Parts: sequence; structure tokens; C-alpha cells
Amino acid sequence: MAKPAPRSPLAPAAFPDLPVIDGARFAAVEAGVRYKGRRDVMLALLDPGSVVAGVFTRSATRSAPVLDCQDKIGGEGDEGAAIIVNSGNSNAFTGRNGRDATAAVTGAVATATGLPETRVFSSSTGVIGEPLPHDRITAKIDDLVAALLPDSLPDAAHAIMTTDTFPKGASATIETSDGPVKIAGIAKGSGMIAPDMATMLVYIFTDAKIARGDLQSLVSSINDRTFNCITVDSDTSTSDTLLIGATGQSGVDVTGSTAFAEALEGVMLDLAHQVVRDGEGATKFVTISVTGAASDGDARQHAMAIANSPLVKTAIAGEDPNWGRIVMAVGKSGAAADRDTLSIRFGDTLVAENGWVSPDYREEDGAAHMKRPEIGIAVDIGLGDGQATVWTCDLTHGYISINADYRS
Amino acid sequence: MAKPAPRSPLAPAAFPDLPVIDGARFAAVEAGVRYKGRRDVMLALLDPGSVVAGVFTRSATRSAPVLDCQDKIGGEGDEGAAIIVNSGNSNAFTGRNGRDATAAVTGAVATATGLPETRVFSSSTGVIGEPLPHDRITAKIDDLVAALLPDSLPDAAHAIMTTDTFPKGASATIETSDGPVKIAGIAKGSGMIAPDMATMLVYIFTDAKIARGDLQSLVSSINDRTFNCITVDSDTSTSDTLLIGATGQSGVDVTGSTAFAEALEGVMLDLAHQVVRDGEGATKFVTISVTGAASDGDARQHAMAIANSPLVKTAIAGEDPNWGRIVMAVGKSGAAADRDTLSIRFGDTLVAENGWVSPDYREEDGAAHMKRPEIGIAVDIGLGDGQATVWTCDLTHGYISINADYRS
Repeated sequence: MAKPAPRSPLAPAAFPDLPVIDGARFAAVEAGVRYKGRRDVMLALLDPGSVVAGVFTRSATRSAPVLDCQDKIGGEGDEGAAIIVNSGNSNAFTGRNGRDATAAVTGAVATATGLPETRVFSSSTGVIGEPLPHDRITAKIDDLVAALLPDSLPDAAHAIMTTDTFPKGASATIETSDGPVKIAGIAKGSGMIAPDMATMLVYIFTDAKIARGDLQSLVSSINDRTFNCITVDSDTSTSDTLLIGATGQSGVDVTGSTAFAEALEGVMLDLAHQVVRDGEGATKFVTISVTGAASDGDARQHAMAIANSPLVKTAIAGEDPNWGRIVMAVGKSGAAADRDTLSIRFGDTLVAENGWVSPDYREEDGAAHMKRPEIGIAVDIGLGDGQATVWTCDLTHGYISINADYRS
Repeated sequence: MAKPAPRSPLAPAAFPDLPVIDGARFAAVEAGVRYKGRRDVMLALLDPGSVVAGVFTRSATRSAPVLDCQDKIGGEGDEGAAIIVNSGNSNAFTGRNGRDATAAVTGAVATATGLPETRVFSSSTGVIGEPLPHDRITAKIDDLVAALLPDSLPDAAHAIMTTDTFPKGASATIETSDGPVKIAGIAKGSGMIAPDMATMLVYIFTDAKIARGDLQSLVSSINDRTFNCITVDSDTSTSDTLLIGATGQSGVDVTGSTAFAEALEGVMLDLAHQVVRDGEGATKFVTISVTGAASDGDARQHAMAIANSPLVKTAIAGEDPNWGRIVMAVGKSGAAADRDTLSIRFGDTLVAENGWVSPDYREEDGAAHMKRPEIGIAVDIGLGDGQATVWTCDLTHGYISINADYRS
């Protein structure tokens, strides 16, 4: 395996303070699944009365834990719930053995916690195609249960890292007339480093009171504007998982609450941006906004075509205000566009309009914007009201080094 | 601009001998459009009785010459035809000025050759968004016409190069009961080097006798299996153009001839492969074959997802038999797949089957195949009869250096 990469230059200054979520406890241990000398398994335990919702990868070659979560996620029940996650092995493309390994791990957690198996969710991230050494995990379940504490979520954030260069956390607290409601979340993901898969895992906890169906609708909707709007290299993991648990212990019913929805979206967007900031080899954080498309769907298609274009991403890496490559990406996206109504901005600088470079554009203005660590590219298609924003990073020698300069 | 890259390690040993095509003459001159000290404009002149067909980029932001060609290509007429091509400037995203520049160039060729303007086709490849210095081209038209020779097609192959590391040519001769029929073609393209666009240009000439509509159907159909099945970096030029001229001077009617169709497909596939072999930074030529898909369309979708995956391409660059990334790419393609019916081969080596690594697979066998300059990846989806083959190259530090390590 490659040497650990240095902390991303786009990382936040520090891991944030996360509020305690009443009704949720966390633990992390060193089980030696693959890594040595670090914690690699986390457990989250939610008290009775909690509901769990989730969204998962759409990959046709999903991992065993994802399939297991999808089987269980729709179930009602208020017996409490557990989430167990290991790093070092993704238990993906492991055939029947994979299903058995997932059952062994979730079964052991059920036994140790007294929960029904249908309330134990799991994720695995790491090497693909190797049998999960589930005995190493089940041997540590009692230790995990014994170590559960309300303030150990940061430890869990460390335990789920694979090739991440920093742990990812975010939180929000909203005040309501019935009292405060808290949200705290952690995530991992940074692209892929073989033999790992680019798995993105996200776990969010709140003391809000909300019905499972309402929580599921809310998180699915917000997911479309946050985690589904980021891309590092256009590749999709077989293991992507987001789980959210609501304990209800604030006593505040947030059904239909705009304030809660906005706070949750803020936490999810923060975590999504941190995943991009830890993109393999990333040196630039790029916001791509498309307006004036024929529909929101068309806007997203244009934005993703720009965000995933190797030529756009290498131009950004080279600090090159190469607007021709933006024109190219819009042209190839397949969504409606008209060369002569297109306009392009780098930051506040109007670069191109009316089918040609803007008469007032000075190359040095574009070049100055591209030198920043945070780049804004705004494209107006000039056809309608559709809009979308997506986030990505640049494509650098660092990405190639991480993904090509080794033999697994 | 970046220094010229060394000749691709995947280049053919030498430029091929091309047969003379009766009724077609060629010339190339140095016009100084952008480059100094090399020929940068070519002219092809086809005698009366010739027909011309073509296929073009589907980009929504097509260049002025492409739009002009598309206007003219459907026309009938046997007055002869001309094709004029410059390198150094793509005349793309140049607004109304672009249309006027194309008209100036094609008009000058029409005047010098006595052809109607509707029979003069043009292409431009090079920097985007800068006005085409058409005066430099029109000043050389008389020199071009005076220099026309039947055996100057190799000179034309050099004149259309931008960042190509070798000129590209291919030919075929078939024997029929009515006599021989000859085909000769040239191409350029290698991905993109800013400020150039990744334009792929292809010009093919034959002395076959065939109606324009039949030639168009044939070349469109073959294009789907050749140039539309290659990818260097998934990006699409605003200027891609293929033109084919048939002079009819062999006197051999090839309407419905399987031998001619096969010979033409051979020439087009050869040129398409040469474009991949000149892919920016390429060190591996990769053939990706998908069988057993639910449909041919699904097979192509899987094959292109594999071919365009940055993680697959970097694994190949690293000579890493990372079959997990193939599983990932199949899973994300959006076409139907079942993890447990998938099988994967590197060359002749069965790597994975039945949802897991093959029990007989030895990592050293996969690794040995990946060390070759020509890699074969075969995936059977296990669902139906759909199949497709596409060709690509690896993603290396060379690609990043060419596309990021400079300021335009």
C-alpha cells in the first residue's frame, strides 16, 4: 500500500466540537481487521424510541452490508438500534461468504445488546474481494459495548477512516419554542486508494422526534442536493452508505420543521464538502454553478459534465483559466445548450458571452482567480430557469500517484 | 505551450505506404496560422464525378467549420469537391466571426478551383476562442492548388497534426472481378493539449464507385463500431470531423459489396486505434470486450464505463491487476448487471466469477498480463447476448503533465 498521504491542504483547521446527542452512545476499538496500531471498528447504540433512515449506493454490484442495510432500513420498531462499522475490508464482491460475514457481525451485536438482528445495521470499507475476517470483529463486540459513551463520536470518526487524510465531523443545534434540537454527524471518503474502494460513509445522529417515514423523505431529498452533488473522480463505490438515527430524546417534534430541515442540510452539506476537500490529490475546492438551463435536470447534467471532465480538472490543477474546456464540457453533456447564448464566469469575472470571449475579459483576471484554493465557475446556459450547483476538486499528479504508483 | 511530447511508445513502426487514389490530389503548405517552421494547411481536390459523405461531433457547441460542413454534406452534385484543413486554430467558439472566416476560406478555394462553394468542405483544429487568421490561409490557396499531386497524402497527414506525436495513415486494396479498388485515409487526434481542443479529424479517399447516400449509410454504420468506440479521456471535441470522398475512377461499383465494407472498416479501425495509441501520456493500449449483456447497448455502456473510469485507467498505468475497480465500473454504469453472474478476464486469465475471485486465480498471472503494452480486459455480464468492444489507453502522469503543468 501507498504511504499515508499528508493532510489535505483543503482540510478544515480542526475537528469540530460535536454536541452530545441524548439517547446515543459510541465506542471505537482496535480489532486489527487490516490496519495495525489504530482503531478500526466503531459501534453506535441508540436507545429505545429511536428511528433510523438511510440512503445507499445505486451500484449494481453493491456490497453485502449495503444489501443487508437495505433489507432492514424500511422496518418500523422502537427497540433501539445499533450501527457497527469496520474499516480495512469492504466485504464487497465476496459472494455468499460476504452475506454470512455480515450476518455473523450483526448477529453478535444483536446478542450483546439484546436488540433484534433487524435493528443492527453495518458497513464495511476497505479492500475489495477478500473475505471479511469477521472473527476479529466479533471478538471485540463486548469491549465495544462496555466502552459506549455519549461523547465518543469523534473516536468513531477516526475508526471509519481508510485513506482519508483527516476525520470529518459537523453539527448543528437549533432552538425551538419546545427547546433545543441537536444534530451531529461524521463521514469518511476521499476517492479511492487501491486496494480500497472509494467508499463514502456518513452517520448522523439527532435527538429530534420524528416519524421514520418523515425522516427518510427528508434525508433522501437533502441527499440529492448534497452528497449526490459532489464528485471527486466520477467513480461510484459499491459501499456508499448514509444512515441517520433520531433518538427523540429532545422531546421536540420536528415534523415539517423548516429550521430542522435547514440545519440537517447544513450538516450534510458540510460533511459532503469535507469529502471533496479530502479528494485524492486535491489542491483546489471547486464550486460549479449552472443557471439558465432548460430544466434543473439539464443544469445538473451540464454541471456534472464540467465537474467530471479530466480536461477541466487538469486545467484547474494547472491554474489555467481555460474557458474553452468549459465550452467543450457543456457541449458534450447531452443536455440542451446553445453556443451563442452561453456565458461563463470565473469568480466574479465574466469570461465568455454571446458565443465568444467577452470583449472586457482580461486573461490576468481569470488567471488570478484560478490561483485561489477555492474556485468558482458559473455558467449561464441562457435557455431557461433550470439551475444546479455541484462541488468537485482538481485532478493532479497526486491523484495519479495515489492510484497508479504502486502495485497492490 | 508545452514542449512537444516524444513519439508515443505505442506508435506504429513507420508511416504506411499509401496507394494513389485516382481522381484525388493533395497538397500541404506552411501558412503560419500558429505554428512556425512546419506545414499547417492541407488541400484535397477530388475530380468531377466524386461523392462526399461525413460524420461529425455531436457537441452542442460545434465549431463554425463543422456547422458549415453539415450544411453542405447532404448535397448531391458531381462537380468534384475540395477539402481544406488548417491546424493551429480551431475556429471554435468564435461567434459570428467564425462563420465569416470559414466562408472566406471556402470561398477562396472555390474561386481558385472553379468549384461551387457548396462543394468546398473545411476543418480547423487548434486553439479555441481566437479569431482564425484566415488571410494567412487564403494567401496560400494558389500555392496549394499549384502543388496538388496524387501522391502527397502523407504531406497532408503531417499538416493536420497539432499535438499528435506521429502522423496517422492507413490503407486497403481489394481485388474484385471488375478490378482493384483502393482506400487511403489519414487522421489526427491524441486527446487535448491546451490551448488546443482534442479534435479528431479523419479524411478517407477511395476510387470506388458508389452513390452518396449509400456511402453515407456505410460510413455512419462503420463509425459506430470504430471511431465511436474509442475514448482517451471521455472528453468530446467541438470539431470532430470525418469526411470520405469517393472518386469512382476505379470504375468498380461497390454498392452492397461486403468486401469493400470490410476493407473500409479495416482502414477506419486502424486509424481509430492509432488515435488511441497517440492518447496523451498513453503507455498502454487497452481493448475492453463486454459479452453477455442484456443488449448491445448495455454492453457498450458497461465497456465505456470501464474505459472512462479514472480508477481503472490509473490501475492499468500502475500495472495493477485491480479487478475490484472493474467490478466498481460495471456497477456504476447504469446498465443491467448482477454481481453474482459477472466474470472478468485479464488476457486469457480468469480473474473473477460467480461474485467472487476465481479459486484458480493467481495474482502473478494477472500481474504478468498487466505488464504488457497491449492489455485485454474481457467482462462477461452473464445476463444475455449483448456485446461490444471499445478501445482506450491508460491515465498517467504524462496526461497530467500535458494538461496541467503549464499556464496557457
